[in-house]
Amino acid sequence: MEFTVEQIAQILNGEIKGDKTLKVKQLSKIEEGTEGSISFLANLKYEPFLYTTQASVVIVDKDFVPKKTYSPTLISVENAYASFTILLQEYQKILSNVKKGIEQPSFIGKNSVIGEDIYLAAFSYIGDNCKIGKNTKIYPNVTISDSVTIGENCIIHTGAKIHNDTIIGNNCVIHSNAVIGGDGFGFAPKADGTFDTIPQLGNVILEDDVCVGSNTCVDRATMGSTILRKGVKLDNLVQIAHNVEVGENTVIAALAGISGSVKIGSNCMIGGQTGMTGHIKIANNTRVTAQTGISKTVKVEGLVLGGNPAIENRDYLRNHAYIRQIPKLEKRLSDLEKKTTNE
Amino acid sequence: MEFTVEQIAQILNGEIKGDKTLKVKQLSKIEEGTEGSISFLANLKYEPFLYTTQASVVIVDKDFVPKKTYSPTLISVENAYASFTILLQEYQKILSNVKKGIEQPSFIGKNSVIGEDIYLAAFSYIGDNCKIGKNTKIYPNVTISDSVTIGENCIIHTGAKIHNDTIIGNNCVIHSNAVIGGDGFGFAPKADGTFDTIPQLGNVILEDDVCVGSNTCVDRATMGSTILRKGVKLDNLVQIAHNVEVGENTVIAALAGISGSVKIGSNCMIGGQTGMTGHIKIANNTRVTAQTGISKTVKVEGLVLGGNPAIENRDYLRNHAYIRQIPKLEKRLSDLEKKTTNE
Amino acid sequence: MEFTVEQIAQILNGEIKGDKTLKVKQLSKIEEGTEGSISFLANLKYEPFLYTTQASVVIVDKDFVPKKTYSPTLISVENAYASFTILLQEYQKILSNVKKGIEQPSFIGKNSVIGEDIYLAAFSYIGDNCKIGKNTKIYPNVTISDSVTIGENCIIHTGAKIHNDTIIGNNCVIHSNAVIGGDGFGFAPKADGTFDTIPQLGNVILEDDVCVGSNTCVDRATMGSTILRKGVKLDNLVQIAHNVEVGENTVIAALAGISGSVKIGSNCMIGGQTGMTGHIKIANNTRVTAQTGISKTVKVEGLVLGGNPAIENRDYLRNHAYIRQIPKLEKRLSDLEKKTTNE
Repeated sequence: MEFTVEQIAQILNGEIKGDKTLKVKQLSKIEEGTEGSISFLANLKYEPFLYTTQASVVIVDKDFVPKKTYSPTLISVENAYASFTILLQEYQKILSNVKKGIEQPSFIGKNSVIGEDIYLAAFSYIGDNCKIGKNTKIYPNVTISDSVTIGENCIIHTGAKIHNDTIIGNNCVIHSNAVIGGDGFGFAPKADGTFDTIPQLGNVILEDDVCVGSNTCVDRATMGSTILRKGVKLDNLVQIAHNVEVGENTVIAALAGISGSVKIGSNCMIGGQTGMTGHIKIANNTRVTAQTGISKTVKVEGLVLGGNPAIENRDYLRNHAYIRQIPKLEKRLSDLEKKTTNE
Repeated sequence: MEFTVEQIAQILNGEIKGDKTLKVKQLSKIEEGTEGSISFLANLKYEPFLYTTQASVVIVDKDFVPKKTYSPTLISVENAYASFTILLQEYQKILSNVKKGIEQPSFIGKNSVIGEDIYLAAFSYIGDNCKIGKNTKIYPNVTISDSVTIGENCIIHTGAKIHNDTIIGNNCVIHSNAVIGGDGFGFAPKADGTFDTIPQLGNVILEDDVCVGSNTCVDRATMGSTILRKGVKLDNLVQIAHNVEVGENTVIAALAGISGSVKIGSNCMIGGQTGMTGHIKIANNTRVTAQTGISKTVKVEGLVLGGNPAIENRDYLRNHAYIRQIPKLEKRLSDLEKKTTNE
Repeated sequence: MEFTVEQIAQILNGEIKGDKTLKVKQLSKIEEGTEGSISFLANLKYEPFLYTTQASVVIVDKDFVPKKTYSPTLISVENAYASFTILLQEYQKILSNVKKGIEQPSFIGKNSVIGEDIYLAAFSYIGDNCKIGKNTKIYPNVTISDSVTIGENCIIHTGAKIHNDTIIGNNCVIHSNAVIGGDGFGFAPKADGTFDTIPQLGNVILEDDVCVGSNTCVDRATMGSTILRKGVKLDNLVQIAHNVEVGENTVIAALAGISGSVKIGSNCMIGGQTGMTGHIKIANNTRVTAQTGISKTVKVEGLVLGGNPAIENRDYLRNHAYIRQIPKLEKRLSDLEKKTTNE
């Protein structure tokens, strides 16, 4: 893709200072600019890079006045940062609209209804009785099992696996090799030490605007539903066990593990590699630092937690300071013992 | 799928109180019942839900006497809990028997022998010289490399990858996107800081009744075999390194990492996000709490471990209590110092 | 594959003592030898196994003199350990050269250039404008999106997903179900608690000799590149976030999570389940023990770190010893208090 400076200035309602015929091929940070790239200068901390950058074009604020000579063409706009974000989004939109239609060989089962303007890539599989909403894109090597419903404007990235009876809302993104609706980990111990497998007959529901990271697993419920509410964002390699419910706009970072039947409130931020014991509840607006282990229900909203077993993070950090004091305490105690004995 | 109350009562040898012609489409917990669902009441703690549930049918114990009016049709049986479990298993059986035959396009290499009544889905790949036992199901986008042996009644879920020379017993379940038999992580450091790759020429053996979770990795041995014994159950996103051996009926929860050549005994329960250093042994019946780090052999059977480096879990929890005492100790010490000085 | 003892002796320039016509089918450790396998004896600690092994053939050092009767055929060589390594590598080479050519159905997009002697398996997908170097192998169910460049002699194992604009050098190995170039986890919070998705428009660059483990994720940069330098080795289930840079010959063990924009130096060894907070730098030659949490830049080279928050590992271990002293300290303090009171 290539754009001229003039085309970009028109999109951004900006004014050009320099060569209008320059062509732009990619976006870059000003400190990493290369020939053919467009960058921006919003925070004046980065101004020195304007005088050294290799970027061909730089978007600047209307009132910006350069102090030295510079080589890029400038586009002056009302708000350089906002304008660059618009460009990012336009670029993303163009990229993601390239794919359309149904490639062969692909597989569509019986009684499945496919919306308008979808992309279904080669080697992707849709089972029986599915509904796929309009403008949804399904990349190669995806499997969508029987009786799955997917809304509009979703992106199912390459290799994602969506198991039967999953319900996915609109504007969801499922990243590569994520597994939605695999069986929960349920085994009933028997007297002889072996296990009976407990059938996992529920499903997974993702509401609108949910994002599931690459290689992340969201297990189906034993009965009922595992639910990710509107706007939940999961990073890569996260484990969501059966019957978990995650509240609206909660964000969970990579490699976190949420055990069965946990209910996490809305607007929480859960750090990477955090673990939660089964059947607990986490209040709204809880923030959990990375590598925390939570084994009890958190009732108070807005806490910041750390450590295993989890406590308030400031206490966790304070405890580490305490531990370092132990040798000094021992020395003082020892001195005192000697003194008392000597007396 | 739909059943009438009469059909279900017949399966369970139960007696119907209410509308025999009602149709049931799914199973639910009594507190989450919806129209068309069947539920059960075993623990009387849940009795109040009987009077409010939306479930169409509820299975109850023979001697149960309702105290208020209720709307669902009841089926009275010898043991409501056991009957519901039977229904779950019947339902699961029906679901899992829907798929049969060989879909196209699929790929079967040279000299591979496929058992009777198998399901091989589209976009699944079987290499050369494989043996697949009867009644085994292979879902879409699975790869089974050369010289793999898989027993009877196995389920290989969508996207699982089974590398060459793997041997899988009967009644095993490999969940979506699991990787069995990938190369172990073996590199020999050279004087210049680079590494030689150590060829990984062994294989993986899964005995009967093994379950491997979604996105879990079981690496092939350098030489010899990585072995999961009869009845081992691995959750999602678990890492099993080369030459590990896991004993019968041991259960490992999500995101645990077992380093190379570890030997875990039988009937152990390993918590989520636990890590083990290479070349250690873990005694039978060991229980490991979540996020534990084990770096030494555990010789005594039946311990419960926690912390990193791991100690007995009660000591780990006690240590946390100790840490919280440090400020108080400091205060007492300080008082004593003052007192002694003042004397 | 089968070799005679004579063929092997010729490769290793060794001398045979025993049956020259024996056939060898696999390699084994001497303590795990089976009929038809070849093993080696280098460390004399293992000599007793020579007299009991089931291996058909054992490679020994030229000057080795058996003390008892033994049953295997021996091959005497200059250096038994080195010779066995040569055999391992030869065997690996033979195994990995079996696959050639383009299987059907596979998919190659527009304007993509495929090198000589490549293997492209069935159900694998190459998008538009890709370049794949000669002698590279692409196993089944792989997806390579648009505008990807892959060098020579690479192995892309089954199910790996390589997203658009990724650049991969020569001699790289991408293991099964790894995801390279998925979107970074970038969301800008809005006033109402919901998030805007920040477009991820950068790419991933893997230099030569990089190895990426099974189910590992390497996210594309927001802008610019996420970079794994020459010789980096990642184990399974590792998370590398957007804009991370990992230095030459650094090794990262399973289930580690590296947050956005971290710069790790060269020749580091990062233990399993370790986590790093975003935007920090790690000096060259740093060693990080398993389950460590690093939240600050490490400036000094060559440290060994442990704990969360990370400190030098010897201090971390010492702190645990301190904690165990607390009850004793309390006892001493208590005694002293009594004594002082009694005086």
